[in-house]
Amino acid sequence: MAKDQKKQPRPKAETPKGFRDYFGAEVTERKSMLDRIAAIYHRHGFEPLETSAVETVEALGKFLPDVDRPNAGVFAWQEEAVPGGGTAGDWLALRYDLTAPLARVAAQYRNDLPSPYRRFAMGPVWRNEKPGPGRFRQFYQCDADTVGSASVAADAEICAMLADALEGVGIARGDYIVRINNRKVLNGVLEAAEVRADQAEDVLRQIDKFDKVGRNGVLALLTEGRKDDSGAFIDGVGLSVDQAQPVLAFLTSKGDDNAATLANLRAAVGASAIGAEGVDELSQIADMLAAMGVAEDRAVIDPSIVRGLGYYTGPVFEAELTFEILDEKGRKRQFGSVAGGGRYDGLVERFTGQKVPATGVSIGVDRLLAALRAKGLAGADSQGPVVVTVMDRDRMADYQAMAAELRAAGIRAEVYLGNPKNFGNQLKYADKRGAPVAIIQGGNEAERGVVQVKDLILGAKIAAEASLDEWKSQPAQTEVARADLVAEVRRILS
Amino acid sequence: MAKDQKKQPRPKAETPKGFRDYFGAEVTERKSMLDRIAAIYHRHGFEPLETSAVETVEALGKFLPDVDRPNAGVFAWQEEAVPGGGTAGDWLALRYDLTAPLARVAAQYRNDLPSPYRRFAMGPVWRNEKPGPGRFRQFYQCDADTVGSASVAADAEICAMLADALEGVGIARGDYIVRINNRKVLNGVLEAAEVRADQAEDVLRQIDKFDKVGRNGVLALLTEGRKDDSGAFIDGVGLSVDQAQPVLAFLTSKGDDNAATLANLRAAVGASAIGAEGVDELSQIADMLAAMGVAEDRAVIDPSIVRGLGYYTGPVFEAELTFEILDEKGRKRQFGSVAGGGRYDGLVERFTGQKVPATGVSIGVDRLLAALRAKGLAGADSQGPVVVTVMDRDRMADYQAMAAELRAAGIRAEVYLGNPKNFGNQLKYADKRGAPVAIIQGGNEAERGVVQVKDLILGAKIAAEASLDEWKSQPAQTEVARADLVAEVRRILS
Repeated sequence: MAKDQKKQPRPKAETPKGFRDYFGAEVTERKSMLDRIAAIYHRHGFEPLETSAVETVEALGKFLPDVDRPNAGVFAWQEEAVPGGGTAGDWLALRYDLTAPLARVAAQYRNDLPSPYRRFAMGPVWRNEKPGPGRFRQFYQCDADTVGSASVAADAEICAMLADALEGVGIARGDYIVRINNRKVLNGVLEAAEVRADQAEDVLRQIDKFDKVGRNGVLALLTEGRKDDSGAFIDGVGLSVDQAQPVLAFLTSKGDDNAATLANLRAAVGASAIGAEGVDELSQIADMLAAMGVAEDRAVIDPSIVRGLGYYTGPVFEAELTFEILDEKGRKRQFGSVAGGGRYDGLVERFTGQKVPATGVSIGVDRLLAALRAKGLAGADSQGPVVVTVMDRDRMADYQAMAAELRAAGIRAEVYLGNPKNFGNQLKYADKRGAPVAIIQGGNEAERGVVQVKDLILGAKIAAEASLDEWKSQPAQTEVARADLVAEVRRILS
Repeated sequence: MAKDQKKQPRPKAETPKGFRDYFGAEVTERKSMLDRIAAIYHRHGFEPLETSAVETVEALGKFLPDVDRPNAGVFAWQEEAVPGGGTAGDWLALRYDLTAPLARVAAQYRNDLPSPYRRFAMGPVWRNEKPGPGRFRQFYQCDADTVGSASVAADAEICAMLADALEGVGIARGDYIVRINNRKVLNGVLEAAEVRADQAEDVLRQIDKFDKVGRNGVLALLTEGRKDDSGAFIDGVGLSVDQAQPVLAFLTSKGDDNAATLANLRAAVGASAIGAEGVDELSQIADMLAAMGVAEDRAVIDPSIVRGLGYYTGPVFEAELTFEILDEKGRKRQFGSVAGGGRYDGLVERFTGQKVPATGVSIGVDRLLAALRAKGLAGADSQGPVVVTVMDRDRMADYQAMAAELRAAGIRAEVYLGNPKNFGNQLKYADKRGAPVAIIQGGNEAERGVVQVKDLILGAKIAAEASLDEWKSQPAQTEVARADLVAEVRRILS
């Protein structure tokens, strides 16, 4: 109590900025979705891999694949001297995705792992970035990759598996589509168009505007330029109209079916060898999907998938949910992309110097879960337990016996463990818990060998709708013999 | 190639020291165990909680409950300035257990959570400590706690639930025991023995030696001291022989059943009020366990559980596996403790200033999993997939159709995706994958509309045991019509 004695301020009970907690159904719904995906992946011969959250910065690489800032975006720290632990001064970091750890594992265990190595991984990753609405610094990823196979059979398999996984979590056939393209086809188109290396990036940028400005808009942008909506003139890339033709042919090559699309693409790549190789690969993928029973309403060749192509070296794919949902302003919109991937090299090369071909897909866990919630498909495991209330503090053992009996019958149940004095608080608690049923047994009921079974769902309905007389008759509350407790609860829950 | 141009060294493909990766069955076996525990916890009304891996150092507290070094043992780093992210200079850290985040959550959401709040949490925690054999810097914890209930009914429930959880993962009744003690009883014993406050710690230290030195050894240590095995004299605490009697009575109080043990404990605490309160609580717990159908062969009052009592304020419990296993030297030993817990205060107090009573249990995930493995109970999900081999690269679609058919029938299956040139490599791959069956179809078989189905498990057995003639007759390989592929594989797997 001395005057100079400082009072220790209390710590703030807060998650760090950009982090959050997941409660109850938020946990079980995601888990249930990931379990169903894991079952599909496992059936396809993929093995689970769980790497540690912490990697050396050296093994991770000092860059994120999808941000521009090198050496940023990662939570990292320097090792202190821990006897027998890491070397003081080493930099450690939280993994920012599941691909970098796969690369490390594929290199570290290259003599032990089967080759090709099919693995799936699900778990949190961390990004030291600006958080925003729905954008957190820790979030889940769910990846499947095949390392060590150059065959497009591996790509076809991943596309088929992705379609199966979407159906596995409950998305109906017709409510999704897996679109497949090939980076080599685009390269072939650029070759056929005789685009110079220094123009390629510019051309790709204009291609991405196709959805917005249409065929003639892109033609103008590839050649002499055009005025945009504001009247400002946008310089063109400077191709000739002839040069622009393969690009335009590529952009409009989606046909009524894979055969038509492939024929259009073959025309678009002209004499380009790399382009022909790309079209051949897509053709093989189409054949293999058909052989696996995956029809074109589930997975289809679609040259409009261009985004992120830079990272990939061959086939690329994207899964889109095609049903409409209402956005926050009540407007209908398509749900959009929930997964993407493709073929990439250089995965293990950083470590061993050897190129190892790989292909994989990543499902956007939060987006897919949001889609399932929007469709009411996220699982119904959210019902609260039966709450056994406490009328007589001294008979706690009796109440626990009731809960134990219910649980032995497979029914979720708990005893109220707060201060039992105020019975209203117990019913409020049951309400907060989402309890479907409350059990009540006072001394009088105990003497008579009965319990009151209160149907809280029916009770809530009656409270909302019934007249005072109806309400007073308490149709939602039944007295049954103690021995019939389980049977009565089961009747209400069924 | 200039002389002064340094070649970038390749990064080392290594996990950081003290971290490890989990492959295949290592992941699924743990997951299966945790899923079964979660189902039991859920049925008892506990809700899952998943907090983020990262907490502010302020919220975590700068100490670990079970190490002596303040401000050590935690992976921590300082926030950089991320626009909209954390405040530069804030310290963040990886959680070192699941209790500290629970404390933060209980304080942060105290107006929203039901009270009492039953929650379970499963996930990795991180310790910046010296790694050792079987001791890693990232490992799983599995906790269940009830926050906000002062009733020992909450403790009884946790003990019953722990017994159910052990049976839920496959431990047979009789192969485990939950032992229950109470910190208050020990305090009562110290009071009855008129132990001075400055002697209490010393007395507790001698009590812990009971298993090693026996009744008379502890008597000597509590009073005048004794010679140890080396002949060195160990000073006693200095109690009188009369004073030592309650302590000795406590140490030998375990009776043939709970009733006998409780009578002995009541005698040991003498006139101590806190001791009587502790015995009363144990008596209530015993009654409630009986009411819940948990007999004394599953959970029992046992005063020998002393370790870690300092952290707890009331009932404490520990689950031990009682079956014998062979240690690394082939000697039989009891498996020992796999879970522990008890009642504690001060959980939320740090944040809010208010004491909130809480009780909980933590299962040692790695130890319990090791026990399940030792008993062959860790789950049989480790069988590899059926491997469809590739005899003819151009007919990849045919092979994928076979794998798809098998999967559609619920059979785990994959096509070999490596270079198919060397068929021996394909069989080696199948072996590495633990494949039970390989499918083979060359051009000849394709023309005839048949496939070869190779039973690899039978094949391995024959290779080990059969004569050359038997081996040559290839009884482990069957030719069936292509249409009978699924049926034949199913026959072999059944």
